[in-house]
Amino acid sequence: MKHTISVIFEHNFNALSRITGLFSGRGYRIDSISFGPGEEEGLARMTLTTHGDEHIIEQITKHLNRLVDVIKVTDLTYVSYVERELALIKISAPPSRRPEVMQIASIFRANIVDISPRTLTVEVTGKTDKINAMLELLRGFGILEVARTGCVALQREYQAKASQEATGIRLA
Amino acid sequence: MKHTISVIFEHNFNALSRITGLFSGRGYRIDSISFGPGEEEGLARMTLTTHGDEHIIEQITKHLNRLVDVIKVTDLTYVSYVERELALIKISAPPSRRPEVMQIASIFRANIVDISPRTLTVEVTGKTDKINAMLELLRGFGILEVARTGCVALQREYQAKASQEATGIRLA
Repeated sequence: MKHTISVIFEHNFNALSRITGLFSGRGYRIDSISFGPGEEEGLARMTLTTHGDEHIIEQITKHLNRLVDVIKVTDLTYVSYVERELALIKISAPPSRRPEVMQIASIFRANIVDISPRTLTVEVTGKTDKINAMLELLRGFGILEVARTGCVALQREYQAKASQEATGIRLA
Repeated sequence: MKHTISVIFEHNFNALSRITGLFSGRGYRIDSISFGPGEEEGLARMTLTTHGDEHIIEQITKHLNRLVDVIKVTDLTYVSYVERELALIKISAPPSRRPEVMQIASIFRANIVDISPRTLTVEVTGKTDKINAMLELLRGFGILEVARTGCVALQREYQAKASQEATGIRLA
């Protein structure tokens, strides 16, 4: 089963190795990682995806929580969340095939961010499924390079607080 | 100096720890990491940013190249490249302040991806600078959560092959 885990941690030079080490130590592969600065100075928020046995992932999550650098771990698998990923895709596209690539890009609401006589680079964002679908469609043209961010995710607000909010708030 | 390094590696459970270990072993902090599946099955492409002494980063790059899992390392710092990052930002926004947040979102071409009676979650993509600028503007409303992917980057095609392409190709 796929798990999406969000980890807030103190951003020092050792934290990342400690976190990734917990997975590799158990022979678990991290499928994607994304992180950058978090909401507070000195903290970073990482979203990672992995898959495997429920029980072992629960264990890993518990160990993550015990790391000194780690502030908070949330396994988003069991809640409703917004998930997004970004990909840069460089496609082989001589001028004759450009219109077709641009059509596909526009259907996927992707932007063209670089062009050369033989290539186009597009930027696309969305759920992992959408990006996979676009890659699949572009494969016929010849994909030269792909850089994917891996997904980032935030818990949807409404589910968690639905009951307590529903009473007090009226739309303006 | 900031360095943006692209690493293509065999995606096994150990590779990530080995790569991050090279940095932490020298007391170097990785500022952001992003990776997901690469252009070929079984490979992943990681974009990482770090900063520090030229000489030491050159050393780290050389060591990266020697890791068995690593296929290719490119320090993009010295070439022209396309760089993008995605951020999900959850902002405190009761109905009365929503229009203002939505205005800012529209200026930054950001999309609103979740809403609750007291919050809005926006998705924004762009260069790191743009995302920092948007975060700065939104700070006044109260930022509840931020999940950033860290940047991904691909070398611009035209510079590298400009000389060899310029001759043979005519626009259709």
